[in-house]
Amino acid sequence: MKKAIVLLSGGLDSATALYIAKNRGYCCLCLIFDYGQRHIREILSAKRIAQKAKCAFEILKIKLPWEGSSLLDNRIKIPQVTKSQSHKVTKEIPNTYVPGRNIIFLSFALSYAEAVGAEAIFIGANAVDFSGYPDCRPLFYQAYRKVINTGTLLGLSGKDIRILTPLIYKSKAEIIKVGKKLGVPFELTWSCYRGSSKPCGKCDSCIFRQRGFRQAKLKDPLLA
Amino acid sequence: MKKAIVLLSGGLDSATALYIAKNRGYCCLCLIFDYGQRHIREILSAKRIAQKAKCAFEILKIKLPWEGSSLLDNRIKIPQVTKSQSHKVTKEIPNTYVPGRNIIFLSFALSYAEAVGAEAIFIGANAVDFSGYPDCRPLFYQAYRKVINTGTLLGLSGKDIRILTPLIYKSKAEIIKVGKKLGVPFELTWSCYRGSSKPCGKCDSCIFRQRGFRQAKLKDPLLA
Repeated sequence: MKKAIVLLSGGLDSATALYIAKNRGYCCLCLIFDYGQRHIREILSAKRIAQKAKCAFEILKIKLPWEGSSLLDNRIKIPQVTKSQSHKVTKEIPNTYVPGRNIIFLSFALSYAEAVGAEAIFIGANAVDFSGYPDCRPLFYQAYRKVINTGTLLGLSGKDIRILTPLIYKSKAEIIKVGKKLGVPFELTWSCYRGSSKPCGKCDSCIFRQRGFRQAKLKDPLLA
Repeated sequence: MKKAIVLLSGGLDSATALYIAKNRGYCCLCLIFDYGQRHIREILSAKRIAQKAKCAFEILKIKLPWEGSSLLDNRIKIPQVTKSQSHKVTKEIPNTYVPGRNIIFLSFALSYAEAVGAEAIFIGANAVDFSGYPDCRPLFYQAYRKVINTGTLLGLSGKDIRILTPLIYKSKAEIIKVGKKLGVPFELTWSCYRGSSKPCGKCDSCIFRQRGFRQAKLKDPLLA
């Protein structure tokens, strides 16, 4: 059975990416990161989603000793979303940006894929309803593919590990509809950047989620 | 003062890269990885080299839960060098290869560089006297530069973090000569893949080092 590494954050995008990978017939190995994120409960969500999907998972603990992101530092306030930040990449992306986060995650996924002979890496990156992070954009993934071709043994031997971003051009509502169809357990997912017991409803991530469910004409089980 | 991140392993290549960076006027921040390597004493070497050079350093601990490299797994025998492996990339590179190692290291360096506003990342990669690892080759670094352009905020804003590989086309003897000139404390460096108290003299890394000192007509202080 062909194998895939799935980057699983615990949010609804990565959960949907996992169910897409399963639906395409991959044996999925989920990679979950404990990187000091403020919303640490997403790790528990990711674990539960992997278990629900009956997939193996690894939780990798990494510590970024540098500062500057509100997602890693409780002293920095997480901003509320503004319309200008919602749909395009600007120089003023929110302070929730963690420099190089997806680059780091992908590099571990690549190492894992090469070690176990996986053919693909799935990542739920999205460049439509997103906070403008550079490492969520299609151009970045195109560039990263060349790193695989040149920097791994598999790449040198002419084979390839494919990086698959099935959600990159979808709106949040479309992602939710796909997820619904595939049976993604939305009740187990977690999106809010703040680490409280209930979604705050005000951060980027909550706003995108709420609007997505509204546009998909579905109810978010987390708000039930 | 312009800043650079220097990937410091404790070997003589990365130590020389550090001294080149210093010589070019950079304030150097060294990044050292504790990644479960068998030759863990190289971490101590790296720390001492950074201290000797009066540079700040961070030691990042990362655990790769996947298997398959003799550098991470004591149960796998570290091979002795053969001539066919010494000068070109083959499909049969030694089992000391750690999938994606430099890709992972670079991704952390990139995150660090972006967080602290460093202009450059120095890495002592070498594609002449090396074990054929794909992530030591010039083409890989060219590909990785595009990841920076597309996947970081700095790249998007038109600025750049330069990845500098000043040793990539040099022989080990040439590296040793440059290092000697710049005052690299070779007595603090460590190259042997085996974790004993003295260099084994038989692994790839020892062979390249011995030959380098011999060709440079210098004595290796580790063998004094």
